[in-house]
Amino acid sequence: MEEFASFLNRNKHQIESRMEEIVTNLNTPSTLQKAMGYSLEAGGKRLRPLLVLAVLHAFGKEGEIGLDTACAIEMIHTYSLIHDDLPCMDNDDLRRGKPTNHKVFGEGMAVLAGDALLTLAFEVVANQSKYEINPSVKLELVLELARAAGAEGMVGGQVADIEAEENGVDLQGLEYIHENKTGKLLGYSIMAGAILAGASLEQKEKLREFSRHLGLAFQIRDDILDVEGSESVIGKPVGSDVTNHKSTYPSLLTMDKAKIMLDQHIHSARILLSEIDFNETLLLKFVELVANRDH
Amino acid sequence: MEEFASFLNRNKHQIESRMEEIVTNLNTPSTLQKAMGYSLEAGGKRLRPLLVLAVLHAFGKEGEIGLDTACAIEMIHTYSLIHDDLPCMDNDDLRRGKPTNHKVFGEGMAVLAGDALLTLAFEVVANQSKYEINPSVKLELVLELARAAGAEGMVGGQVADIEAEENGVDLQGLEYIHENKTGKLLGYSIMAGAILAGASLEQKEKLREFSRHLGLAFQIRDDILDVEGSESVIGKPVGSDVTNHKSTYPSLLTMDKAKIMLDQHIHSARILLSEIDFNETLLLKFVELVANRDH
Repeated sequence: MEEFASFLNRNKHQIESRMEEIVTNLNTPSTLQKAMGYSLEAGGKRLRPLLVLAVLHAFGKEGEIGLDTACAIEMIHTYSLIHDDLPCMDNDDLRRGKPTNHKVFGEGMAVLAGDALLTLAFEVVANQSKYEINPSVKLELVLELARAAGAEGMVGGQVADIEAEENGVDLQGLEYIHENKTGKLLGYSIMAGAILAGASLEQKEKLREFSRHLGLAFQIRDDILDVEGSESVIGKPVGSDVTNHKSTYPSLLTMDKAKIMLDQHIHSARILLSEIDFNETLLLKFVELVANRDH
Repeated sequence: MEEFASFLNRNKHQIESRMEEIVTNLNTPSTLQKAMGYSLEAGGKRLRPLLVLAVLHAFGKEGEIGLDTACAIEMIHTYSLIHDDLPCMDNDDLRRGKPTNHKVFGEGMAVLAGDALLTLAFEVVANQSKYEINPSVKLELVLELARAAGAEGMVGGQVADIEAEENGVDLQGLEYIHENKTGKLLGYSIMAGAILAGASLEQKEKLREFSRHLGLAFQIRDDILDVEGSESVIGKPVGSDVTNHKSTYPSLLTMDKAKIMLDQHIHSARILLSEIDFNETLLLKFVELVANRDH
């Protein structure tokens, strides 16, 4: 466990330094640069970029080759949070205890900082001039990132989520939301590691399945924490989903059945990892992290 | 001239059909699909995508190989208009005589439709599976598109423009705004044609210079039209820059000097075209179009 914690800390630091370096080197108006940097620095678990490096590790590859792709994924995640927090969307004043981007820089600048981070992510993945990566590998990384982040992925899931808040949703609709809004980018993190490691088609297929289970487990755990978590640990009021009339796994299934479903996804994720011929130690730790997380 | 008009009409139609096909094939919530399609269909001159095809034509290549890249550029242009029109930016209710995206679909959906179009543009350029294009060529197209559209290009220019409205701007600042806000994507349209045609480094360099002059000429003509144009032809009130206290070439230079500068950029653009060993007929027509346009 000690080793896992040091993997997380060391790489989290490296990812954050590299993102800072990329944004600092931009030749752009300083307000925009500050607005982009502000939200990138705002912290978080950096789960997605760390997964890229963990998959590379599982295949016995150096994590460094995935560093820029990892940063790009965190940029996409960050842009989506900036736009989600806008008054015309979730209208949130705080994110991880800090004022949201538009509270500090204004709404127009927050829209543009999000746009710039989204665009920068593609530049970073297509560039990666520090490493010897085959052009067709970079191209696959770009294409899959666009698919994961766009209308058939994250943005589509966000639209479905907004519509569900107005019209309600059944279990199938809830699964669509999570598979797209959070699942596709999480899945991309894992696939990006596999693409960079030169994984076979069969290995990619298993990892795609693995990421689907991990993503849904992550989301079900989120819903459970909203009911049973500790407010001071999760950082937002317990029960906010009920207050906001949000459909969740516990509300659609009962709490007991939601927990059984969580266990099933965790179980399937573990099985899939054991079926791939690589060193799954770190990835199993991520599965544990998702299954047991308290925030 | 007849031939040029038919080039414009035929290809405009093809670009619009292809964009419609791409959006129709998306597997995404129908509201998002409608919001994306609404602004793509809203018309305009399609100057940028047509330039891609005109450059290919100049190099003696089939325009079809540039069709998807051309569509991607129009998607980027369209997303930028959707976001620019938002209440937190320019707060415009009408665009080309039709209600703006957020007026029809709401602000949240307009932000997301813009995000989805921006992301789709990169997917389209990275994919292009219908054509035989080398992966490293596609990768160059992706990288240059990200550079042109992002913090060091279009978004940076938009930020500088917003700041100039608050703090005023000198001629150098005005040039920065135009070179980035409109110039970089216009320049990319020309470079994309050159990349797809396999132009040499020297040819690309000349075309980059050419596009800088064309872009600035376009913008100076815009400023002149705002003073001297016909309201019914340009589709917005004449004198709106003065009313909005916007710095323009005529206001910073005098009208006479602005016209001289326009002529100089047009002259330089023509010279550069003549220095490249290709068929410049169509591109010269574009230069004329920019020099003499009345809307």
